[in-house]
Amino acid sequence: MPGFNSETYIPQVAIDCVIFGFRDKKLSVLISKLHLKGEIYGLPSGFIKQDEGLEDAAQRILKERTGLSEIYLEHFKNFGNANRTNRDVIQRIMEYNTDFFAGLDRFDIKNEFEWLSQRFISICYYALVDINKVTPTKTEMDESLEWYDIHALPGLMMDHKEIVDLALESLRQNLDKNIIILNLLPEKFIMKEVQDLYETVFETTYARNNFQKKILDLGVLDRLEKKFTGAQNKAPYLYRFKK
Amino acid sequence: MPGFNSETYIPQVAIDCVIFGFRDKKLSVLISKLHLKGEIYGLPSGFIKQDEGLEDAAQRILKERTGLSEIYLEHFKNFGNANRTNRDVIQRIMEYNTDFFAGLDRFDIKNEFEWLSQRFISICYYALVDINKVTPTKTEMDESLEWYDIHALPGLMMDHKEIVDLALESLRQNLDKNIIILNLLPEKFIMKEVQDLYETVFETTYARNNFQKKILDLGVLDRLEKKFTGAQNKAPYLYRFKK
Repeated sequence: MPGFNSETYIPQVAIDCVIFGFRDKKLSVLISKLHLKGEIYGLPSGFIKQDEGLEDAAQRILKERTGLSEIYLEHFKNFGNANRTNRDVIQRIMEYNTDFFAGLDRFDIKNEFEWLSQRFISICYYALVDINKVTPTKTEMDESLEWYDIHALPGLMMDHKEIVDLALESLRQNLDKNIIILNLLPEKFIMKEVQDLYETVFETTYARNNFQKKILDLGVLDRLEKKFTGAQNKAPYLYRFKK
Repeated sequence: MPGFNSETYIPQVAIDCVIFGFRDKKLSVLISKLHLKGEIYGLPSGFIKQDEGLEDAAQRILKERTGLSEIYLEHFKNFGNANRTNRDVIQRIMEYNTDFFAGLDRFDIKNEFEWLSQRFISICYYALVDINKVTPTKTEMDESLEWYDIHALPGLMMDHKEIVDLALESLRQNLDKNIIILNLLPEKFIMKEVQDLYETVFETTYARNNFQKKILDLGVLDRLEKKFTGAQNKAPYLYRFKK
C-alpha cells in the first residue's frame, strides 16, 4: 500500500486528471482499471504532497502515468459535494479481495482505507497530449491503464463520468478562445489532421477551404516542407506551431 | 476564537471571496480589516465545513458578510503554491497583540494559530452583488468590513492582491461570453448605468448608440416604463433582466 497520510499529503483533496489523446479520428481518454478484483475503472488520480505546489502535483501525476514532462494542462473545475467520498468503492474492493487483504497488516490497511474513504474535494485538470508520445505507465494502483474512445468508456467510479463530460465541454469552450487543442497533434502535421481533430471534438464537419483559412488566419502556424506520400503533385504541406 | 479544527472543517483548504460592487462609476471590492492591531487587510474568507458542499460554503461565507442569499458567484482559480501560508501574518498579529492574548487560554490560542498557520490551498470565487442591497456585516474576525475602490485598495495580506487582479481579469473574460455582469446593477436600471458599468470594468469608453444596440441585441433585457426625472421629454427607459 502506498502509505497515504497527512504528514506526506494534504488530506481530503484529490487531483483527478482527464488525459485527452487523439488518433484515427477518435478522441480518447486514459482510464485506469484498479488493481484488485471488482472491475473498478477511474481517472488517473493522486494527492498533493505537503511540500508540493498544486500544479506541480498535477504534473507529477500526469508524468507518472504518461512518461511526459511539461504537459499542457488546464484546471477546469472543483468537485466538492459534501457527500463526495470513495467509501462505496473501497467497500466493494474489500469484499472482492478478502483473500488479498488477509495477508496484509490490518493496521496498515485500516489507515489506508480510512484515508481513501474520507470526503474528498477533487481538483480536476484536463491534459492534452500527443498520443504517439505517451507510454501509459501503471502505478501500483493500476491493473491496467489504457486509452478508451470517449464515446465508449467503461463504467467509471464515483462522479468520474461527469468529470469527463465537463472536461470535454470545457475543452470545446477553450477551443473557441485559443489553439490549445493543437497540443493533441504530433509536432508536424498536415491541415487535414487539424480538421479531423476539430471535427472529432465538435462532432461536426467543416468545409475544407473555409476551415483552412480560419486556422491559418490565427497566425500561429509555420508552413514547412511538403509531406511526400508517393503521389507528388498531391502532397500536402506540413505545419508546425510557431516557436 | 472561532474554534477551527478538522472535526468541523476541511483542513488546509480556504475559500477567498472577491466581492464586486458597482456605484458612482466605481468598481469596488469588499475588504476586511482584521480585528486586533497590526493593520492587516484581506479578502472575506472562510473554511469548508465537513458536512457542507464547496459552493454552499462559499454562499455561506458571502451571506455572513453581505446579508444576501443566492449571490451570483463564479469560481475562477485555485491558489496552491507549496509555501502558501498565513504564518507571517499570524506572527505579526501575535507580536502586535501580546496584551490581548495574555488573557486567553494558551492551549486554545496554540490550536487556533496552528490551524491558521497551516499551508492552505485557496479556492477563489468572485461574487457580483447589487451594492445597494448589501449590508457589510463584520464577523468576530473583522475590525471593519468596507467597500474599497479596486484602484485604491489598502495593502492586502498574502497573495490577496493577486487574487483580486485575477478576479477582475476573469470577470472581463466572462463578460465577453455572457451578461453576468448585470448582477452588479439594481433590479431596474437605465441604459446609461449599463454603459457606465462596462466602461468602468473595461476602463474604456463606448459610443452610446453602438453600445445600446450591442446590449439590446443580446435579447436579455425587458424594456419597462420611462424613468421620470422631471424633464419628461428626456426621460430614459428603465430595463430589467428577462425573467
